[in-house]
Amino acid sequence: MAVLETIPTQLPLQVSSSFLDTSTIIALAVFFALLCACIIIGHLLEEKRWANESITALLLGLCAGLVVLLLSKFQSSRLLLFDEDLFFLYLLPPIIFNAGFQVKKKQFFKNFTIILLFGVLGTVISFCLISLGAFLLFRRIGILTLKVDDFLAVGAILSATDSVCTLQVLSQDETPFLYSVVFGEGVVNDATSIVLFNAVQSLDLSDIDAITALKLLGTFLYLFFTSTALGIVVGLMSAYIIKSLYFGRHSTDREVALMMLMAYLSYMLAELLNLSGILTIFFCGIVMSHYTWHNITQSSRITTKHAFATISFIAETFIFLYVGMDALDIDKWKSSNSGAGTSIAVSSTLFALVLIGRAAFVFPLANIRNCLQTSDSTKIDFPRQFIMWWAGLMRGAVTIALSYSKFAESKKVSTQDSALMITSTIIVVLFSTLVFGSITKPLIQAVMLRNAKPATSDATDIPSLEDIRLLFIENGDDQSEQERDEETSGVPKRSSLRLLMSHPTTTVHYFWRKFDDKFMRPVFGGRGFVPFVPGSPSGQAHETS
Amino acid sequence: MAVLETIPTQLPLQVSSSFLDTSTIIALAVFFALLCACIIIGHLLEEKRWANESITALLLGLCAGLVVLLLSKFQSSRLLLFDEDLFFLYLLPPIIFNAGFQVKKKQFFKNFTIILLFGVLGTVISFCLISLGAFLLFRRIGILTLKVDDFLAVGAILSATDSVCTLQVLSQDETPFLYSVVFGEGVVNDATSIVLFNAVQSLDLSDIDAITALKLLGTFLYLFFTSTALGIVVGLMSAYIIKSLYFGRHSTDREVALMMLMAYLSYMLAELLNLSGILTIFFCGIVMSHYTWHNITQSSRITTKHAFATISFIAETFIFLYVGMDALDIDKWKSSNSGAGTSIAVSSTLFALVLIGRAAFVFPLANIRNCLQTSDSTKIDFPRQFIMWWAGLMRGAVTIALSYSKFAESKKVSTQDSALMITSTIIVVLFSTLVFGSITKPLIQAVMLRNAKPATSDATDIPSLEDIRLLFIENGDDQSEQERDEETSGVPKRSSLRLLMSHPTTTVHYFWRKFDDKFMRPVFGGRGFVPFVPGSPSGQAHETS
Repeated sequence: MAVLETIPTQLPLQVSSSFLDTSTIIALAVFFALLCACIIIGHLLEEKRWANESITALLLGLCAGLVVLLLSKFQSSRLLLFDEDLFFLYLLPPIIFNAGFQVKKKQFFKNFTIILLFGVLGTVISFCLISLGAFLLFRRIGILTLKVDDFLAVGAILSATDSVCTLQVLSQDETPFLYSVVFGEGVVNDATSIVLFNAVQSLDLSDIDAITALKLLGTFLYLFFTSTALGIVVGLMSAYIIKSLYFGRHSTDREVALMMLMAYLSYMLAELLNLSGILTIFFCGIVMSHYTWHNITQSSRITTKHAFATISFIAETFIFLYVGMDALDIDKWKSSNSGAGTSIAVSSTLFALVLIGRAAFVFPLANIRNCLQTSDSTKIDFPRQFIMWWAGLMRGAVTIALSYSKFAESKKVSTQDSALMITSTIIVVLFSTLVFGSITKPLIQAVMLRNAKPATSDATDIPSLEDIRLLFIENGDDQSEQERDEETSGVPKRSSLRLLMSHPTTTVHYFWRKFDDKFMRPVFGGRGFVPFVPGSPSGQAHETS
Repeated sequence: MAVLETIPTQLPLQVSSSFLDTSTIIALAVFFALLCACIIIGHLLEEKRWANESITALLLGLCAGLVVLLLSKFQSSRLLLFDEDLFFLYLLPPIIFNAGFQVKKKQFFKNFTIILLFGVLGTVISFCLISLGAFLLFRRIGILTLKVDDFLAVGAILSATDSVCTLQVLSQDETPFLYSVVFGEGVVNDATSIVLFNAVQSLDLSDIDAITALKLLGTFLYLFFTSTALGIVVGLMSAYIIKSLYFGRHSTDREVALMMLMAYLSYMLAELLNLSGILTIFFCGIVMSHYTWHNITQSSRITTKHAFATISFIAETFIFLYVGMDALDIDKWKSSNSGAGTSIAVSSTLFALVLIGRAAFVFPLANIRNCLQTSDSTKIDFPRQFIMWWAGLMRGAVTIALSYSKFAESKKVSTQDSALMITSTIIVVLFSTLVFGSITKPLIQAVMLRNAKPATSDATDIPSLEDIRLLFIENGDDQSEQERDEETSGVPKRSSLRLLMSHPTTTVHYFWRKFDDKFMRPVFGGRGFVPFVPGSPSGQAHETS
């Protein structure tokens, strides 16, 4: 036996590894082992209210980075380079798609106005404040080499909130309003901050005027609508293909494969057309859960629901692990070459700007909205405004990716200050994720408990049951009434308009449902047009834990 | 509107694509679109007996390659480089894991002896014959620059059968014996041919003697047992972790994530330790389907069964698409620089050698096995020998990957003959997959139909019902008899030994079941030790279509 075991060292038979790079294998093996550890530890810590999987992954990543650093005698902590391609091509799409697939569509569209307001106007306000603040304050700390476009980039980089962490700290079931607003804002914010970042990179700064600003707005609107439309079109295509081809002779694996591939294709097409892939795949997910999901077999429904959630879960954990490991990269810290004092000063300045930048739009916008609302029950009270402010403070992988893209060495000649910007961004990301990530859950429980108004405490903009009953009666949703209605008059009643004014979202939703039932579902399928099965992807959160 | 639409071209806002390489996005978008097309076309052609998804993908890939070739005016047909990392790290593992996960374990282990015999001895015979044949025949065609180690490499490269295509042309339900033997042989063959290939690469050819051959055998045995053991250990670990941690408080996404990650981890660990990752992940899949799968929630069971199959299905289709597109790479054809005559001569020589090499071990080994069998019903008749020969003739992605590894330009100074070897390998792969892949299914139906012996036609080595009843009675499987048994004597009965001689596999299986029930399942879970659910991953092939 001893002879057999020593043979491989005598004969240099490096089986299989002659095709594969050993360092890649080591890195992958370590990463997968750490991912397993994250899941097990995250499960064991589940009862603890301070912990969640993101934080576990971040801390484990930091520990692993430290071990690598020690093993390599402070030469390197890198196993894999932080690769923007990896992040934007493979990790982000499944997370955003799953978010769209599992989102409570009703909540989301009900709060669509405020989501857009926060995501677009809010991000722009935050961007301006952070850029201006950095421009004014950094000179005092002693950072002199940064130019105007660098400051603008810093503003855009730090305006990108972390929608992944939001998904983990807010619960869609306990606080549906907060979840849909903060997470929805995060999705729109992604698109906005990337547009801003690219605009800043490419604009000629010597020639800024009102027309440029208008053009920027135009670009944003163009991006928003085309990206959304692309996502919807691809989603509908998948529904139509599966409905028309597979009807009656279902093939589970092909259905699931087609859904996965078409979702991913929508993201790739959006990127190819220079649109926002994040917006596209998000809306593709929404359309797929509304139509396509109902056209597939029962086992495919269970499979898609859980498989998409699992893939998204793995990608999230992977990102935080990665950020944690990457944070200790010794090269970056070496090349920043500034004292601890400067580092801390810059990081805390940036962090303070992030706090102020978010406060500057959350509270004003929420209060303006409150003024426009008629009934008290639909207003956003201060505790919830506070949580909206707080839950959007986390910065994550998008921030780091943008920061690398702007300040990393490979792109342009690196200065000390550029390296300092990267390390400061990392500090802000780590600090905000660890501190805000762990405090948010207990904070929400504390605030919500103290301010608990039973049943309606988190349900703004929902008309009372009486309103809904009236709405349905007045619009003749009752089948017999509807028939009578159509016999007597072809024009919509005056009451519809009145209702549209008083409960715009509910009324829009009512007309959408009518349109959906009459034109969309017969073509694309959906609940009611295929055998009914209880539990849609967004409806069984308790089962997926 | 027109203004808005032209803005993006006026303002150079390349949203998102500043982080991503445009060519990567184009390549990915094209690939995903083609994958969707493959699935849809494959579905439409499902009724046709000549077509299957591999062939559709291969042909679509060829067409796409042709289009790219025409678009680039015969400069390049490449969208993505054929990347050995991509293949060995990301595409092969899920396919092999799923094969292990869904394999009919009873069939597989029942035919384990013949699988090992074919996979190891058969591959070695084939390797020797092809190497020798190439050595003798190539000089006559006019290929003079190849050395001895090149010929040995050609033998190893062309001995690697394509287990992926086997999965598609043989049906586990219709022909379980053929499926388990041909596919099982393919898994073992992968390991054997990679060992041979690496041995050939690293051996000092001036010093070959009996000891070297013995060392090679030792290395193979070491590899085989350690790889298998690693897979089993990781599989058991996953079962134990999920059973002990998640008992009573199931968390669907974590369970599925942990199974995926640990399976992948087993592959990475095997590669890290220079073992055969393919063998490891295959046995990991078997253990996971036997223990882990029974420890998870009902929805996780459905999810894993379908999700693993879907991922494997996508990976298979991707490989064939890739091979098809890559086949038209103009650079390789240019650098081979030989006339069509030489190309065809070399390819047909190689192909003839593949045919002969396989015939040289299938028929003799099958007949030797027949001679050792006592009863007529367990013998392999000629039609089935013929199909075993035929179904293993396909060559696939492993062959291409090995061929690149040996003869591609980046590795060493390329000669015309090296390039010719690559193009000839591609021709053999394309021809064997297209021709044998499409003919196998109809052939099996024709041969099996003509030779149909009802019920037992494909079930060798299964003792009659009477035998089994006797076995159980003699060994006292009946609970009361067993108790009586244990009271009267502690030693195994003489009849066990007799049965072991007459029905070795069945008896081994019986004792394994006893061991499994007594020691393994109480610790690692499994059917009977968690609430029973009908349908194990390998048992519901009709539902997965």
